[in-house]
Amino acid sequence: MKRLFLSGALAAAIVIQAEDKVEVPYPSGFRGWQHVKSVLVGPDHQSFANRGGFHHFYANDKAMEGYRTQKFPNGSVIVDEGVFTKDGEGQAKGMVLEGERRSVAVMVKNDQLYKETGGWGFERFDRDERTGKLPVAGRAQCHSCHSQAKDRDYVFSALRK
Amino acid sequence: MKRLFLSGALAAAIVIQAEDKVEVPYPSGFRGWQHVKSVLVGPDHQSFANRGGFHHFYANDKAMEGYRTQKFPNGSVIVDEGVFTKDGEGQAKGMVLEGERRSVAVMVKNDQLYKETGGWGFERFDRDERTGKLPVAGRAQCHSCHSQAKDRDYVFSALRK
Repeated sequence: MKRLFLSGALAAAIVIQAEDKVEVPYPSGFRGWQHVKSVLVGPDHQSFANRGGFHHFYANDKAMEGYRTQKFPNGSVIVDEGVFTKDGEGQAKGMVLEGERRSVAVMVKNDQLYKETGGWGFERFDRDERTGKLPVAGRAQCHSCHSQAKDRDYVFSALRK
Repeated sequence: MKRLFLSGALAAAIVIQAEDKVEVPYPSGFRGWQHVKSVLVGPDHQSFANRGGFHHFYANDKAMEGYRTQKFPNGSVIVDEGVFTKDGEGQAKGMVLEGERRSVAVMVKNDQLYKETGGWGFERFDRDERTGKLPVAGRAQCHSCHSQAKDRDYVFSALRK
């Protein structure tokens, strides 16, 4: 058991060396997780060019424990799914509808793997891609901003009843 | 077992007699169900006065089977949760945020209980109330509009991937 653990740590170290960051996996099946809340990033928001559209937040079971206790256990995953909008037509005129998926941003808790960034690993997947391309500097930026919510274990969102 | 069934049917008959409609229960726990899709009803939509805001659709497990097969089994429940919006401030300026719950509209499949309305019972609960107040005429109106989607078992929404 101990040897297995060491092998795992060694493997992780190799990944760090090879890419200078620890992989954050794609959150397969997140659409079936708990819907936490939603926002719409409109044209007047500073991030509209990169993030305009619906954003739906989802949590896996471990993250749900974190929302309750304000302490997220290892294995917690929170997803921010960006979805392009389209204007409704006909009877739906005046409605903002969902278009295609824009992005899947994810934060994963592991206080050993992601020590440098508050115990959270950050990644972003474009559209339906399964390979994240967030550079190390991007992760640091995620962490820096999320540090504003350090007293809530770096999580901005709250679970809407 | 047969006697139990008859008792149930009798109880249902009494409810029909008393209120001239069959109860559609509050969909307890729907926030933990599958998030199907969302729309935003904006100020230019014809229903804005009564339905303005976010609308999140949720499905229980049986309704999920219906989305896959286009035939919804008895026990399927689909919820349309209306949520008031509020404008973001500070860093969230330009975002549309969620406010309080506005409404919980529900459709429940039971091809025996709701024969008159395509096998679906309709109800609407205001804000966080647990007692629905949709009059019989309102149900007929729901059914009439949903009849446009008769070839999809009266369900407008489709499951977004």
